[in-house]
Amino acid sequence: MQTQSIITSLMSRHFQDKPLRQVFLVACGGSLVDMYPAHYFLNEQSENLRSWMMTANEFVHAAPRALGASSLVIVCSHGGNTPESVAAAQLAKNRGAATITLTHNAKAELLQWADHNLLYKWGDDTLVTENPMALILSLCVDTLYQVEGFAEWQAFQHGFAQIDTVIRQARAKVATRCAAFAERYQHESLFYVLSSGASYGHAYGFAICSLMEMQRLDAASIHSGEFFHGPFEVTDNHVPFILLMNEGRTRALDQRAQTFLNRYNDKTEVVDARELGLNALPASVVDYFNPVLFYSIMCDYRAALADIRQHPLSTRRYMGVVDY
Amino acid sequence: MQTQSIITSLMSRHFQDKPLRQVFLVACGGSLVDMYPAHYFLNEQSENLRSWMMTANEFVHAAPRALGASSLVIVCSHGGNTPESVAAAQLAKNRGAATITLTHNAKAELLQWADHNLLYKWGDDTLVTENPMALILSLCVDTLYQVEGFAEWQAFQHGFAQIDTVIRQARAKVATRCAAFAERYQHESLFYVLSSGASYGHAYGFAICSLMEMQRLDAASIHSGEFFHGPFEVTDNHVPFILLMNEGRTRALDQRAQTFLNRYNDKTEVVDARELGLNALPASVVDYFNPVLFYSIMCDYRAALADIRQHPLSTRRYMGVVDY
Repeated sequence: MQTQSIITSLMSRHFQDKPLRQVFLVACGGSLVDMYPAHYFLNEQSENLRSWMMTANEFVHAAPRALGASSLVIVCSHGGNTPESVAAAQLAKNRGAATITLTHNAKAELLQWADHNLLYKWGDDTLVTENPMALILSLCVDTLYQVEGFAEWQAFQHGFAQIDTVIRQARAKVATRCAAFAERYQHESLFYVLSSGASYGHAYGFAICSLMEMQRLDAASIHSGEFFHGPFEVTDNHVPFILLMNEGRTRALDQRAQTFLNRYNDKTEVVDARELGLNALPASVVDYFNPVLFYSIMCDYRAALADIRQHPLSTRRYMGVVDY
Repeated sequence: MQTQSIITSLMSRHFQDKPLRQVFLVACGGSLVDMYPAHYFLNEQSENLRSWMMTANEFVHAAPRALGASSLVIVCSHGGNTPESVAAAQLAKNRGAATITLTHNAKAELLQWADHNLLYKWGDDTLVTENPMALILSLCVDTLYQVEGFAEWQAFQHGFAQIDTVIRQARAKVATRCAAFAERYQHESLFYVLSSGASYGHAYGFAICSLMEMQRLDAASIHSGEFFHGPFEVTDNHVPFILLMNEGRTRALDQRAQTFLNRYNDKTEVVDARELGLNALPASVVDYFNPVLFYSIMCDYRAALADIRQHPLSTRRYMGVVDY
């Protein structure tokens, strides 16, 4: 992928004298959600390279002490003019860090603070490997590989080569399910979204972006592992659960939630990465591709919900409408 | 505090030959919530020491590669027999890490995997500096100080010496507010809890433990900085918000949420650490004491709510009642 040359370039220039030791993933809302798989990957796989994932305004107001010349700061903003994200990239440059920005806007303010910018593609006709979540993951896989070596780098390339085909087939498979989901849950006002591992970020993302922001519905994400240590006490039939079941190491956590929900809730929608074919990917790296699959699949779920509720996904009452 | 001698002992024994490079904070539910301030502190203040905060079952199923002899794993479990937490401590020992456990049960299974155990005090008549949140923070402050030096160590000692007095006065101040809150919101079914910085973990904790687990109420936490990037679209008067306003660096994020909520929501309960006297603590470390204050204050809020709703805080329908 195109990410490799960016990292190679940074390694031979910016990080030649001062080794890369920290990666900061900084954004807001949906763009921040796209960073979770990369953050989870670095936390799980790196020997020494540190990783942070921070909402941009917290990064600006409470920047970690370690931020400096040994840092790579990756900032993503779809429109590229989100003030907090622009301020974060500026702060990163002021502290001597290298910056990679990702945006869909070639004239974004963000670009003035970018050592490298990835102008990504967007829309239903693009490949997921061209979208931010996979690109940021790929940037971090390449970074880890070049900084400290990473035995599964090649397996990742296989995964990136396979994922779009898996997703295309999976989307065809869920089309009727999305319609049935929308039909059944169109009058619900609150949803819980569960997942674990690299996909927890997307459970959060589906709650805050797809349901709260785009559908004005109440929602909350719950980590499948945390479910049994508090949240599950609310379980009965008053609320639907969406369970994003991972293929890979944390699948057991999701399965445990499924078993419980099967017994105590009649409104559980299971989206199972294994059943949707993700197990075609190399087992050593499959964990990190779950959220890439879930992102595409859940876009179809939310589109069906928006359609039946006659609440277009672009409707806003505050964002970009009023001052705040 | 008693934490210093534990760290000193580990440094001169376990970590003498293999320097301490990673701290893993591992627990479930309320105990995991208690770890957030320490994790946030290390992320913000350490030059090199890495920190992870993980729900125990994810730690067990997807243990990070860096876990090993250079790791300190801190595991907390109130009853000390939570299977996932016991398994996490066992895994840590099997991987050669040093372990510190915290529990309220002197006969806990957890103890068999502990290099050091802190048997903490609990209950309304104890000091917060004797409870897990402050103890874990203190352990990590002492760790950072001994591993790489930390200029604000003494300021932290001042903070620990002051915090119980601040909290005692703050609790007296909010007594009537708690009763009014309970009276006004007793029939609500859903709450959003907002905060930022070191207190975000407690916003999450109040949602999942106090409201979902102990009151069987729907709830979700929202980071004040993320609020404007999706979640705020649900704002109107159908749902109450609880805003935990920090003293310190991220206060601006909470204030921005407050300004918005003042305009678009009639049911916002503000709990303001500055107004409650937390600014008496040293400014360089005050950020990390916000959640310690909020924990105590919000215990009084939830007690008032439990009382008026006639739903005792100890009521459970699943936890410890059915198999799962």
